[in-house]
Order: sequence, then C-alpha cells, then structure tokens
Amino acid sequence: MKSREPFALACPVPLSQYERVVLAHGGGGRLMHQLIEGMFRPAFATAEPALQHDGAILDPVGRRVAFTTDSYVVQPLFFPGGDIGRLAVLGTVNDLAMCGARPRWLSCSLILEEGFPMADLWTIVQSMAETVREVDVRLVTGDTKVVNRGKGDGVFINTAGVGILEHDLVIGPQSLRPGDACLLSGDLGRHGVAVLNAREDLGLQTDLQSDLASLVPPVLRLLEAGLEIHCLRDLTRGGLAAALVELASSSGLEISIQEAAVPVREEVRSACELLGLDPLLMANEGRFVAFLPPSQAARALEILRAEEVGRDAVLVGKVGAEKNGTVVVESPLGGRRIVDLPAGEQLPRIC
Amino acid sequence: MKSREPFALACPVPLSQYERVVLAHGGGGRLMHQLIEGMFRPAFATAEPALQHDGAILDPVGRRVAFTTDSYVVQPLFFPGGDIGRLAVLGTVNDLAMCGARPRWLSCSLILEEGFPMADLWTIVQSMAETVREVDVRLVTGDTKVVNRGKGDGVFINTAGVGILEHDLVIGPQSLRPGDACLLSGDLGRHGVAVLNAREDLGLQTDLQSDLASLVPPVLRLLEAGLEIHCLRDLTRGGLAAALVELASSSGLEISIQEAAVPVREEVRSACELLGLDPLLMANEGRFVAFLPPSQAARALEILRAEEVGRDAVLVGKVGAEKNGTVVVESPLGGRRIVDLPAGEQLPRIC
Repeated sequence: MKSREPFALACPVPLSQYERVVLAHGGGGRLMHQLIEGMFRPAFATAEPALQHDGAILDPVGRRVAFTTDSYVVQPLFFPGGDIGRLAVLGTVNDLAMCGARPRWLSCSLILEEGFPMADLWTIVQSMAETVREVDVRLVTGDTKVVNRGKGDGVFINTAGVGILEHDLVIGPQSLRPGDACLLSGDLGRHGVAVLNAREDLGLQTDLQSDLASLVPPVLRLLEAGLEIHCLRDLTRGGLAAALVELASSSGLEISIQEAAVPVREEVRSACELLGLDPLLMANEGRFVAFLPPSQAARALEILRAEEVGRDAVLVGKVGAEKNGTVVVESPLGGRRIVDLPAGEQLPRIC
Repeated sequence: MKSREPFALACPVPLSQYERVVLAHGGGGRLMHQLIEGMFRPAFATAEPALQHDGAILDPVGRRVAFTTDSYVVQPLFFPGGDIGRLAVLGTVNDLAMCGARPRWLSCSLILEEGFPMADLWTIVQSMAETVREVDVRLVTGDTKVVNRGKGDGVFINTAGVGILEHDLVIGPQSLRPGDACLLSGDLGRHGVAVLNAREDLGLQTDLQSDLASLVPPVLRLLEAGLEIHCLRDLTRGGLAAALVELASSSGLEISIQEAAVPVREEVRSACELLGLDPLLMANEGRFVAFLPPSQAARALEILRAEEVGRDAVLVGKVGAEKNGTVVVESPLGGRRIVDLPAGEQLPRIC
C-alpha cells in the first residue's frame, strides 16, 4: 500500500458538529451535500461532476466493455491487510480483470447506518480513494443512503465497474478446452483466516494478513504477452473449490487439480485444521485461476511470477477430456475425490 | 403496470424447504447457486451468463455512454403504486434518461437480511423482471449478499446502469443559459405522501399512489424531435426544491419558478398542510424538469403531454440572467422568496 500522506488532512466535514452519521446525511438536502462536497470530493481529489448529478458520461470506446457489480458487507469493517473500502474497490476491479478488461470507471454507493462514527467513514473513504489511485481507475458516480440505527451494520458499500477489452479473446467458461492448463496465482485462504480471526477473536497467534490485492497487473501482463487466455476466475466466496465447480459445471468439462501443488501457508493450514475448515473452500481476495493452452503455461507462469501478487503462481491442474462437469482433486498417493459446492460459505460475510 | 401473467408461476425455489433467507443463500455455495438458477434466472427469463460469472461483456458502442448507480432502502418495501424492485429499476433507468441516454444495461445487487421471507423476495424479483421488460433494458450482471438478522432491513437493492447517448448534446447544469425555459413534467409529491401514508399508518383516507414511472419515453421523444435540451433532472429526494437548488448552485445562475404554475393534487396539498410539509420538497419518482431555449418550449410541452407520464406537463419557470446561484419562488401576488436546501429529506428512506 502506498503512503496515506496525501490524505492525511483532517476530515473536512466538521466532526465537532456531526461525530456520527444522522439520517439527514442521506436525505438529499444540505447535510448530504456537505458530506459529498466536504468529504467525498476532497478524498477523491476529483472534480467529477457526477458525484452530485444523475450519472457520469463516459467517452466513446469503440470496443467491447465489461460491466460488473458487487456489494460488500464484510465484518469487521477493518481487518488485517485491508478494510471494506479497499475491498470494495479491489473486489470490483478484480472482477473486471477476470473479464479480461482494463478497469476504467467505478461507481460507489454507500448504505450508512445512523450513528456510524464519521471518523470511521472518513478512514474508509480515504482507503477507497487511495486504492482508486493505486489501480488507476476513476470513481465517476455515486450515491449515499442512510438507514435507521439497527437497520444496517455500520456501512455497506456497492461498487459497479466498467472496463475496456483491448483484445478479441472470448474469456469465459465457454472457451475452456480439454487439455487446458490451470494456473493458480498464489497461496490460498489468507483472507478467510484473517477476517475470521479478527471477527471471532479466535486469538490465533498470527500476524496473518488478508491476501487482498489488485489482480489487474498480472492479467494485463498475460494479455499484453498475446497469450491465448481461455478463462480467468478470481477465488472469493467459496474459495478455489467453488470457482472450479462453477467453471466445470458451466463448461460441462472435468477439471482436475493436484492437491500437493496447491500452495497453502503453514499458518493457514494450522488454523484450518484447528477449526475444521478446508483451505480449498477458504475465501481469498487476491487470487485467481487462469486457463490457457498447455504449451503456453510455462510462459504464463513466468509472467505471473514477475508480479508481486503472482510470486507463488503454480500449475495446479488441467481440464480433462471427460464431459462430466465435475472437479476432481488428486492426492499425492493417486486418490481421486470429487469436490462439490458447499451449501454456503464456511464463513459468512467474508466480503 | 402490465399484467403479471408471465410470472404467475409458483416461486421455483422450493419454499417448503427455505421459507426464509438463510445466511448460506449469500455464501457462494450451493444455496446461492440455487437462488440464482432457481429464482433469478427464471424470473428474468434470461440466459445472461454473467448472472453467475464475474461480469457482463457489452458490445462496442462507439458513442458516449452514461453510467449511474443508486441503492434503494425504501420502507415499506411495498407501497401504493410500486415496490422496492420496481423502484430500483425505474430509479436508475430514470437517472440514465436524465443524462440524455437510452438505458441499455443494468446490474442488480441484493443485500438480504437473514430471515427475509422467500415469498416476498420472489414478489420483488418478479416486479423487477416485469419492469426490466417494460422499459426494455437488459439486466446483465448481479450479486447477492446476506447479512445477519438485525443487521439489515429485509432487502436493500443496488442497481447500476449503462445507457447510450444517441446525440451530441451536452446535457447538464453547465449547459444552462439565461432565458432557458424550465418545464415540469407533472404534479408533485405523490411518491412522498404515498410512502409516508403506508409507512406511518397515518390513516389518510386516500387511494393516492406513488407517481413512480419511467421517464425514458418522454426524454427520448424530446431528443428524437431534435430539441436543444440543455439540462434534465429528475425530482427524487428533496423534491423540486432540492433539484433546482443543485442546478442553480452548479450553474451559478438564478432559477425562478411561478408558485401558481406548480401542479399539486388536492390530496397531496391537504396531506402536506395537515403534516406541515412542503410539496416543493416532497419526493417524486416519476417527475423531472427540462431546460431548453424558450422558443422550443411550446413544442416540448406538446411532446411531453402526448406521453401518459407527462400529461400534466407545464412551463413552470425560467433561468434568469443574474449570476447568484439561487432559486426564487414567485407568488401569484408578486412576492419573491429564496429557496434553500433543507437539512435533510422531510421524510427519510423514501427511495
């Protein structure tokens, strides 16, 4: 993370007057105006007119664009390695990257609970602003609502994003082919364990941080190298297992992975053993899988490993010829077990 | 509203098993998959792959596009003349129309409270689907989160939208010119009074319905007629007063309106008098103001009045030459009062 310096000014909305969010901050009147002009605009150091108007006007693109949205309800709002603001920017930017797009424009819609400390809101807004700069996107339009005390949970954030496809590939499960290599960009489960430890006060003696990170650089590098990417998917709720099950099910093909090849840090492994959780199902916020022809796997790994976020990238599996739509985990001793979707997340509200 | 017939099938998610939303419905696992495939996809009668994937790919446009977002937290969820689902589609579509865009693509992100009745969710999803068809947009990507009981309020909905500008006008407060006519598309305050009456159980003897409606047809008709639209603004939170104050403030020009020209139904007027509220500040969800050269006002009114939603359109005011950024209401007797933004909405959670 970059320094917070440019944002180290005191929160410009007079905290003495409003230390906490009140319903009128979402009412469309003077207080909402004050929040937008006094906090959001300085934080994003932007003159975007759409922060106050009905929408943003984007320049013509002339190429395909990707469009995505996610709402973020993570608890706690601040966790080791990130916070809900940074997550709300990176989560949506990462979804655009998974479409093979260069993220360009974001919207941000806040649902604040009456009574939420204004200082915490300021910290979150600063974090969003910092992250928006870091990943080089523009936050162009937004919305703020306030709900009554006890009808929300501090803050929920929705971001939607628009990005540009600068290539002609069709990236998605429909492009998976038998024989495709499956690359995994790094170790699993740190986001899930870090959030769980922070929320449940498990007292795990660990300084484990969430893996929360932008996946834009590695994806753009892969595309710029002209590699024939067939499919990309980030590993969020439900972890690697859920991502692969969805892809196998959508494509109708079998995907197999080598259990021994999956990188899991010792701290994550012990925490999972202690709590009866499966690292394959643990949430991540800075990990993805990439599928491409096996002949290009070595070059792709090289590119991924040159990026900080892909340092531990590995070849983890492949797409099989069988049309059974299942995911198979192969153990070092040659055992094969079929992975099914869990009913829910092992841990709710991880993102 | 159109008939509900095409959606009159029973909710396809087995209600016997899950009569209420559980946390796992937002967990990224089997239950979330069941909700998407069993409820959302049939309701929207769509094969959009992005309902399950990371984002939607939109075809190249080659023109400017508008991008907007809003979260909807209205209470009650069902009110005379609409519900949160219909509001979430029309509110965002209307914001695109105010940018002068033809709405094309929507995202939808749900934040559900654990324990929310599945049957109510189904009703809301049906209403969204029906409205999406009615206004001819595509819901292309979405997200579902579930928060713990007591940490939400039934359902919050975020929609973001992308629309296409099929003209070269610059529509916004920066295009306002002294002398511009200000047209108002219809009577004020029905949404606010209808929601208030439903929520607070005021027992007003009225069958007053929200004015909730699509503003797309009248806006497209104005544009297709080649009129030189300078600015459009829908009147939501804060009503006509807040909209005009924002425009006057952004443009630095004075906007004056004739109080006697503002259409307010008798039922709304009495309710406001009874409750000490001001119709100029009441929320609307199917009303807008349009600014254009005075020579084109008569033709624009003719076009607006040909549409059901613009039947009661009137010339309500004008942009003055004074550079004071204020809004002035002129009474029939010649009095002039300056309108300021209220601190908040008279009524919270109106949208």
